[in-house]
Amino acid sequence: MYRQSRNKRKIINDPVHGFINIPGELIFDLIEHPWFQRLRRIKQLGLTHFVYPGATHTRFQHALGAVHLMGQAIGIIRSKGMEITDEEAEAVTVAILLHDIGHGPFSHTLESGFIENINHEVLSSVIMEKLNVEFKGKLSMALDIFHNVYPKKFLRQLVSSQLDMDRLDYLKRDSFYTGVTEGVIGSDRIIKMLEVVDDELAVEAKGIYSIEKFLIARRLMYWQVYLHKSVLSAEYLLVMLLRRAMELASRGEKLFATPSLEFFLYNRFPEGIEKDHLNPAWESIIRNFTLLDDDDILVSAKVWINHSDKVLSMLCSDFVNRNLYKIQLQNYPFEEERIGELRKEVQAFYKLDMADTKYFVFSESIANNTYSTADERIKIVYRDGTIKDIAEASDILNLAVLSKEVRKYFLCYPKELAR
Amino acid sequence: MYRQSRNKRKIINDPVHGFINIPGELIFDLIEHPWFQRLRRIKQLGLTHFVYPGATHTRFQHALGAVHLMGQAIGIIRSKGMEITDEEAEAVTVAILLHDIGHGPFSHTLESGFIENINHEVLSSVIMEKLNVEFKGKLSMALDIFHNVYPKKFLRQLVSSQLDMDRLDYLKRDSFYTGVTEGVIGSDRIIKMLEVVDDELAVEAKGIYSIEKFLIARRLMYWQVYLHKSVLSAEYLLVMLLRRAMELASRGEKLFATPSLEFFLYNRFPEGIEKDHLNPAWESIIRNFTLLDDDDILVSAKVWINHSDKVLSMLCSDFVNRNLYKIQLQNYPFEEERIGELRKEVQAFYKLDMADTKYFVFSESIANNTYSTADERIKIVYRDGTIKDIAEASDILNLAVLSKEVRKYFLCYPKELAR
Amino acid sequence: MYRQSRNKRKIINDPVHGFINIPGELIFDLIEHPWFQRLRRIKQLGLTHFVYPGATHTRFQHALGAVHLMGQAIGIIRSKGMEITDEEAEAVTVAILLHDIGHGPFSHTLESGFIENINHEVLSSVIMEKLNVEFKGKLSMALDIFHNVYPKKFLRQLVSSQLDMDRLDYLKRDSFYTGVTEGVIGSDRIIKMLEVVDDELAVEAKGIYSIEKFLIARRLMYWQVYLHKSVLSAEYLLVMLLRRAMELASRGEKLFATPSLEFFLYNRFPEGIEKDHLNPAWESIIRNFTLLDDDDILVSAKVWINHSDKVLSMLCSDFVNRNLYKIQLQNYPFEEERIGELRKEVQAFYKLDMADTKYFVFSESIANNTYSTADERIKIVYRDGTIKDIAEASDILNLAVLSKEVRKYFLCYPKELAR
Amino acid sequence: MYRQSRNKRKIINDPVHGFINIPGELIFDLIEHPWFQRLRRIKQLGLTHFVYPGATHTRFQHALGAVHLMGQAIGIIRSKGMEITDEEAEAVTVAILLHDIGHGPFSHTLESGFIENINHEVLSSVIMEKLNVEFKGKLSMALDIFHNVYPKKFLRQLVSSQLDMDRLDYLKRDSFYTGVTEGVIGSDRIIKMLEVVDDELAVEAKGIYSIEKFLIARRLMYWQVYLHKSVLSAEYLLVMLLRRAMELASRGEKLFATPSLEFFLYNRFPEGIEKDHLNPAWESIIRNFTLLDDDDILVSAKVWINHSDKVLSMLCSDFVNRNLYKIQLQNYPFEEERIGELRKEVQAFYKLDMADTKYFVFSESIANNTYSTADERIKIVYRDGTIKDIAEASDILNLAVLSKEVRKYFLCYPKELAR
Repeated sequence: MYRQSRNKRKIINDPVHGFINIPGELIFDLIEHPWFQRLRRIKQLGLTHFVYPGATHTRFQHALGAVHLMGQAIGIIRSKGMEITDEEAEAVTVAILLHDIGHGPFSHTLESGFIENINHEVLSSVIMEKLNVEFKGKLSMALDIFHNVYPKKFLRQLVSSQLDMDRLDYLKRDSFYTGVTEGVIGSDRIIKMLEVVDDELAVEAKGIYSIEKFLIARRLMYWQVYLHKSVLSAEYLLVMLLRRAMELASRGEKLFATPSLEFFLYNRFPEGIEKDHLNPAWESIIRNFTLLDDDDILVSAKVWINHSDKVLSMLCSDFVNRNLYKIQLQNYPFEEERIGELRKEVQAFYKLDMADTKYFVFSESIANNTYSTADERIKIVYRDGTIKDIAEASDILNLAVLSKEVRKYFLCYPKELAR
Repeated sequence: MYRQSRNKRKIINDPVHGFINIPGELIFDLIEHPWFQRLRRIKQLGLTHFVYPGATHTRFQHALGAVHLMGQAIGIIRSKGMEITDEEAEAVTVAILLHDIGHGPFSHTLESGFIENINHEVLSSVIMEKLNVEFKGKLSMALDIFHNVYPKKFLRQLVSSQLDMDRLDYLKRDSFYTGVTEGVIGSDRIIKMLEVVDDELAVEAKGIYSIEKFLIARRLMYWQVYLHKSVLSAEYLLVMLLRRAMELASRGEKLFATPSLEFFLYNRFPEGIEKDHLNPAWESIIRNFTLLDDDDILVSAKVWINHSDKVLSMLCSDFVNRNLYKIQLQNYPFEEERIGELRKEVQAFYKLDMADTKYFVFSESIANNTYSTADERIKIVYRDGTIKDIAEASDILNLAVLSKEVRKYFLCYPKELAR
Repeated sequence: MYRQSRNKRKIINDPVHGFINIPGELIFDLIEHPWFQRLRRIKQLGLTHFVYPGATHTRFQHALGAVHLMGQAIGIIRSKGMEITDEEAEAVTVAILLHDIGHGPFSHTLESGFIENINHEVLSSVIMEKLNVEFKGKLSMALDIFHNVYPKKFLRQLVSSQLDMDRLDYLKRDSFYTGVTEGVIGSDRIIKMLEVVDDELAVEAKGIYSIEKFLIARRLMYWQVYLHKSVLSAEYLLVMLLRRAMELASRGEKLFATPSLEFFLYNRFPEGIEKDHLNPAWESIIRNFTLLDDDDILVSAKVWINHSDKVLSMLCSDFVNRNLYKIQLQNYPFEEERIGELRKEVQAFYKLDMADTKYFVFSESIANNTYSTADERIKIVYRDGTIKDIAEASDILNLAVLSKEVRKYFLCYPKELAR
Repeated sequence: MYRQSRNKRKIINDPVHGFINIPGELIFDLIEHPWFQRLRRIKQLGLTHFVYPGATHTRFQHALGAVHLMGQAIGIIRSKGMEITDEEAEAVTVAILLHDIGHGPFSHTLESGFIENINHEVLSSVIMEKLNVEFKGKLSMALDIFHNVYPKKFLRQLVSSQLDMDRLDYLKRDSFYTGVTEGVIGSDRIIKMLEVVDDELAVEAKGIYSIEKFLIARRLMYWQVYLHKSVLSAEYLLVMLLRRAMELASRGEKLFATPSLEFFLYNRFPEGIEKDHLNPAWESIIRNFTLLDDDDILVSAKVWINHSDKVLSMLCSDFVNRNLYKIQLQNYPFEEERIGELRKEVQAFYKLDMADTKYFVFSESIANNTYSTADERIKIVYRDGTIKDIAEASDILNLAVLSKEVRKYFLCYPKELAR
């Protein structure tokens, strides 16, 4: 039973943007909804606070911040003569508010594997559809924008593109909370220079330097924060302990867990369910998913320290007490031989089964491209109406590098083996 | 098994203070200890993020911030000719680092009642004593300072007094994270004006205005943040749901819980245990306590939504989904009659036993005095050596009011009854 | 010949408020006017940069900042249901833009004496009246507000009262530029809590703590910046050198000066001219005054270092090279005897005429009251409509002290005499 | 007569860096010296405040800021094991303090032409040499560093190189005061990553992203601030009016001027004087130069508005009242024909001699390269000791573009002609 609040607070203090106004009752009611409140319990940057202790901010705050920037963007675009109706303004605001609603705990970490065959975009869609039913169709236009079927294409770009309100908020917020002040971007200034040309977002030419700086700041945040070595090491430790837990679960072993976590540990979902939103399995998936957050994982790991499985116990102890593994990064894959040797050492040192050493010595790869040409591009509009891609408009940024995916390989192993 | 880290990182990014240097290996090793790492999982301001979503910072960050300020204070005091030996510097830094080590989840909320007969100062002491054993006596001087038996009294004041590094950090940090920028205090400036006179901390006379502003900012933080109506309402909702859980536990009913939480739900401790640090009961208390954090409470509340006890279920649902109760504040106690009537309404509305209405309609009181004369006072030192209490030195601040405890009474009840 | 600008830039970068929008063409044209441009050459805080080197900001910036805050205040007041027509909004904005137009160089310093019988309010009035003629009557409503004859009294309060946009800007700006971060006030928050009750500005009750902090911050700025000892010493050194210059001028001695400065050095104005705005003398007064700024004084002082009058030469050398005099402050007047002795010493040391020692050894007094009851008071409005004076509403601030003028006496003399 | 100050204040408030400590008595005495105090009267960014009103900061503040950063850099480099003796520390600090001592008013503007045959580096040298005599040889090592003859080359690099304390302060300070927050650089972080390798400054490899951002921020500041169109237009208006004044002076016409300005208007200096520091002409040059600042130029322009020469009068009126000329920028020179036509129009419109139209219609060029390979390069040092140029180490920045000078041509003419 969800009881409706009567006293609708309209202004929220935000350390990043100052005062945030909640624009209208629908947005207010969505924020109050338990499914949105869940985002209070999901950290925006997962385990990054292991390295940057300040980074404990949540997806809840981020979503509110993105709503705030959306309000600014709507105002600027309207002031330049492009029409956005009040309905459209509400819809695009709902879309940005709910863009992360389908994220689970430690989302980037758990993306691959934990919930088989279902990704967070699909979860977002299904949850938004269910909310639309509950809110009697008031979210239909927002869903159209979200699914990119609404005629005004630029509205979708405000929600998801190279310069969407999502990025403009999270880059600023993440640099604020990590204390990596160099990552701060001029969201306000970029938004002030947004225009709509031929139904697409573009940036006024005098904004080129701001965009260059935005791209460089983003790149800096990637290498200094998002893909920080110790953060990666922590995240993969979590991946490993969950893989082990799922392995034990699949063998039928009993594991302490909250009911929601238990549901996902012990259930697998059929291929194709992503496209079949009417599948009855969704009922229990959503019910459990909307109660699942960072805390379920964290308390279980604490309890599993005392599990009889030595592998699980060791991984959990290292994770909970932040005993991170040594990590090496390089631009090419690590040799199988090196990995094999380390596994042998681990096997000897901890007296493990050889098969279980893969949880302690592992190599994977990560990729990042600062400015993907696959995504929609950042367009610069000149006074005479000419439009150019930023990669072409900027003479200083290296187009080839900017657009190229940077892939790095890493190798982790316990510090005890480090020499 | 706690394995020693080899790669000792020395600088930590902090959004509040910038770069924080970890001063020395002992401090580093204490920070790495699982018992200190636990503070990462305890929010500094408990449920305040229900009102100020940015306030998700932890006791871990706060302790590091206080260490940073301690380093500044030591430098300033030494530069003014007062000796602090290297050992004393390390000891007072250890003392400030560990000053909150005994805090449990939602500490202020749970202080009364949850762990019977044991308060957080005692827990801090016992934990520090155990750490001292583990670290082979290296914490002895810190313990002496902490227990105020070390000869140089001013060292204790740096850890605990009206102007200790604890307050100077938390006021600044809390205002930073809540976004209540008006609460920001000039820690740097206050520290620059610290002096030691007759073995006591004092502030140079030209710092009077800064101290006035510090007191006013602190008062503002009290009423705007620490004792914010909605924060109080949330905290007491949590108190109520835990009281109910303990009541059910005492009746022998089964409740989902992590092992650590279970330990405290189902055990009571003898009177006098606080003074008896050698009591064997401490062994299991500390083992469980050092694994207990905010998450244990939060996940249990989520699970208890589906508990068969209607009272517990309702309280947990309201708590998890942030359906806060209406709260009224006044300067005198609420009439029993009014409370009785509201309880009757609740009873009728929710079809409860009359005895259980006390969980939904309740009145308690809170108190705050900005500048307690019971505590050590803030001393102002003039050029000619004269020393005055700030309440005497400042002509603008109202001595009587400053020193007087402000007590407020509040009454909570479900919004459904609000008119 | 003043040629009209065609390209009307609309947004100005401001380090304090971010982007400032110029609201409309009339405001733009007034800013472009040479008489307003003059404010670029008048430092907001006169000689304060002798102590706080960062404080080089000008009255020009301050006036733009106040316009920015006025826009916020208008928006907030309208949003609470109080009508402000577009004409009124423009008029009150013009009034705040021009509120300092009559300030001369080092205004507070030169207020008494330099331009006999004319104060800056009168100059502002006369200049605004002349602008009104030039702008064909478009400033009439602004003048009515300025002169407090416009029916809606609260508009005048936005321009001049305890919480006017003038103070809200200058306190924030002065603390920003001096680097006295403790003086920062929450202008945004205070403006958000403004209301109009019975045609008067009032602050919502929940804003009490912000107002308390505003008053304390203001007091801090007074004693730490505006009345800083060394700033006083510098300002009175300037007063002394100008007095000497005027004395020489009145004796008919030739002094290097720009034509505008020469005009004021060698002319005196009749009593009563303040009330006689049609007096033909105003023509030349305004023509010269609108070309006079800080630079005229500063370059003259540099040249006068080589003047044959030893007194003027010494004063100018000390001023230009920032060789400030020793200053003592106390709460009661200095004894004539002490002053006399110091003068004798100065006379002997520098071999001066006794009559001239008054330029090197002098005592005056300054006063400040943080919250004058003579001014309009700050009103707090409660939810039930009750209105209280802040001094009554706040229990912590000492009414008697707040409202009482604090007068301090100071004594200056060359450092060479200091013991 | 310069009288020595006795009360040596040691801490200065700076809005950019917080508290600045004056390190030692020699630095203190140099700051107190009239020749250094003159920098209070020279704006760091000349006429930039015409566009960014906040940019009124002075070379005085900047020099103190650079001293502050030098202190940090010395500390970091020492902490990494490289010896810097106390004498060297003082010398390199003196060198950075005085690096701008030879700058005249509006230095970049006046560089070419105003003081014939003498540039500001030479003036700095001569002034420092004279100070060295006055301070009895205490500046000798600083001079050696300044002239790059001191053995430890990296000390010179701290004063003048791609990453010297000069740039690290001015970029941060200029972006702070203009309000162009995007130009803010992480001085603190860059300094933390400085190392000395083979007697040269280098940056740790993990600092690559910070350096990339530094270069991008610098580029942004160039195009957005230093070479802003309206700033250029204002600066060249000033160049024109001074050229006209000098032309009139060379014809023997009388011009209002302070004695110092008069000296430079009516005197020309022999070729070769730059290398002949013992030339007796230096005596009067330095005496007058050290009394010359922005104000001398500004007040003269005000007075010259009423000069009988129509060209000078018009230029001064436009300058003082900020009636800036229209400016066009392009990548190639403007056609003589176009310039000729505009001059004809000006001639007709203002009824000028054809020869005088060059003051109102003119075209020049400006150049900037973000990272000159002619200058010393930024070196990146890897863990294994390898050293790379940043242009090589960074894959994203375009080497060719970075190192290439960007030359732009501009054309100015009165707005009246604009179409």
